[in-house]
Amino acid sequence: MAEHARWTDGFIAVDWGTTNRRAYRIGAKGECEAEFEDDKGMLAVPGGGFPAAVAEIRERLGDHPLLLAGMVGSNRGWKEAPYVPVPAGIDDLAKALVWPGEREAIVPGVSTLKNDRADVMRGEEVQLLGAVCAGKCDEDGLVCHPGTHNKWVTLREGKISDFRTVMTGELFSLLKDHSILADLLQGPVDLNDAFCTAARFAIANEALPAELFSIRARVLLGQAKKEDAASYASGLLIGTDVRIGLSLPTSAQVTVIGRPELTRLYAEAIRQANRLAVELDGEQCFLAGAREIAKRIGK
Amino acid sequence: MAEHARWTDGFIAVDWGTTNRRAYRIGAKGECEAEFEDDKGMLAVPGGGFPAAVAEIRERLGDHPLLLAGMVGSNRGWKEAPYVPVPAGIDDLAKALVWPGEREAIVPGVSTLKNDRADVMRGEEVQLLGAVCAGKCDEDGLVCHPGTHNKWVTLREGKISDFRTVMTGELFSLLKDHSILADLLQGPVDLNDAFCTAARFAIANEALPAELFSIRARVLLGQAKKEDAASYASGLLIGTDVRIGLSLPTSAQVTVIGRPELTRLYAEAIRQANRLAVELDGEQCFLAGAREIAKRIGK
Repeated sequence: MAEHARWTDGFIAVDWGTTNRRAYRIGAKGECEAEFEDDKGMLAVPGGGFPAAVAEIRERLGDHPLLLAGMVGSNRGWKEAPYVPVPAGIDDLAKALVWPGEREAIVPGVSTLKNDRADVMRGEEVQLLGAVCAGKCDEDGLVCHPGTHNKWVTLREGKISDFRTVMTGELFSLLKDHSILADLLQGPVDLNDAFCTAARFAIANEALPAELFSIRARVLLGQAKKEDAASYASGLLIGTDVRIGLSLPTSAQVTVIGRPELTRLYAEAIRQANRLAVELDGEQCFLAGAREIAKRIGK
Repeated sequence: MAEHARWTDGFIAVDWGTTNRRAYRIGAKGECEAEFEDDKGMLAVPGGGFPAAVAEIRERLGDHPLLLAGMVGSNRGWKEAPYVPVPAGIDDLAKALVWPGEREAIVPGVSTLKNDRADVMRGEEVQLLGAVCAGKCDEDGLVCHPGTHNKWVTLREGKISDFRTVMTGELFSLLKDHSILADLLQGPVDLNDAFCTAARFAIANEALPAELFSIRARVLLGQAKKEDAASYASGLLIGTDVRIGLSLPTSAQVTVIGRPELTRLYAEAIRQANRLAVELDGEQCFLAGAREIAKRIGK
């Protein structure tokens, strides 16, 4: 009981990804009292280095219990937290916590295996189920979670029922950093006509690896402006993503959870597909989910 | 006439790409007498360095006229050879040669602008039209030219009538060199069950950026063998490419021109789509096209 009492007195929640981590101190009343973000993601922690990396978090935010989510629980992280199969709700996550120490709990990811389709998530589940628990999101419906790997998630009775990952963010980065389109994609992505035209086109047509090359050809032949290329490419990729996502069972409204600079692009593309889109801030959803899991520790 | 006589006495044909160049000395009877390949592609030649790079070719293959094709004629090459619009036949290429010197001719690329679709090629046109002139390929039909950027080309009356570029080879390289799939894609690509299954799947279904992520999920969840991942990824990409290509006007048979290690993969994927595929060696087609253009110089 002394152990559980310490969690209700406050704890630290960490969203620990591949390349970054964000840590929040949550007070006894659930409020966020302090936070920081740095680039000590999973890949930046040397072998055996997680105890030191965790001690550093406590130096900055206080000597509290830690709830860790994200890639820190992968097979390349601190300690593997095996995927919980769908259907997965907040209680399922809380029951399957993995404990590398007495005061450190790692949230498992979620897996799906349906119709010969395999998929995994790790980190997004806390945000998704946090939004449900906070009443910000229907217990039955479709959620889109953009990021490096966008997730389309079907919720049923408040649980993750099925989901599909689309590599949109990573493909954009690969094209921008390393491809023949690189010099065309250095500009900003704007919610402009080029973005919306490309999104509508990709929602209606399917030929992404051909349309990507056409970005270059259109500029070379004077059919498009070079400064629109990044927005057009983003529209093509996100429009393709939306076409895939909306092929899942869905209602008229899609909840989009994540960083605001990404949710606004996805929300616009979803509107171009004649659906309603509601944006939620991923950070707030993460905090809501972390609080719900912490409440359940020891129960 | 002295000038033309020198071309009919023999010449050097160079397929000068972005990262490599291949040079061939063609004798008076059209036979290939000597050749070499090196990594002095367009990007490896410093500003103003093309005269020296050309002199080096003559040091190795003799003091003959030069016919240059490929990216050497782009706006980042030696001298820009503007695209010839479709329909483009071998006579159109010969008429639009660009001459940086009296004894050096650059073959133009080809462009298409149809139905708001823009596309360009540079280098492949010599191989395609060489195959037609050599009687190896129907004057009306569909040709597939795999490479970094695969081209699907519609021929009409022996001319390039329309075409579409698919970034398949470059996407595979980006994924293999820089993506979250990199560690899974280092193995060889084999024409095995994994390749054929993925190709059939991609020919019938359209969700490439989602299916790519599933490669990782399937291995993580024990649904697929890691050593099959490269073949499976190649099958997905090439199957998607074939689905796009076969949406063009086509006959029952597709001619596949290029490097044999690529044409065999595309030919198999085309067969998985229930079409016939005939493979032609790209190097032989290039030499055939270069000879035809050289014949026309001065006429």
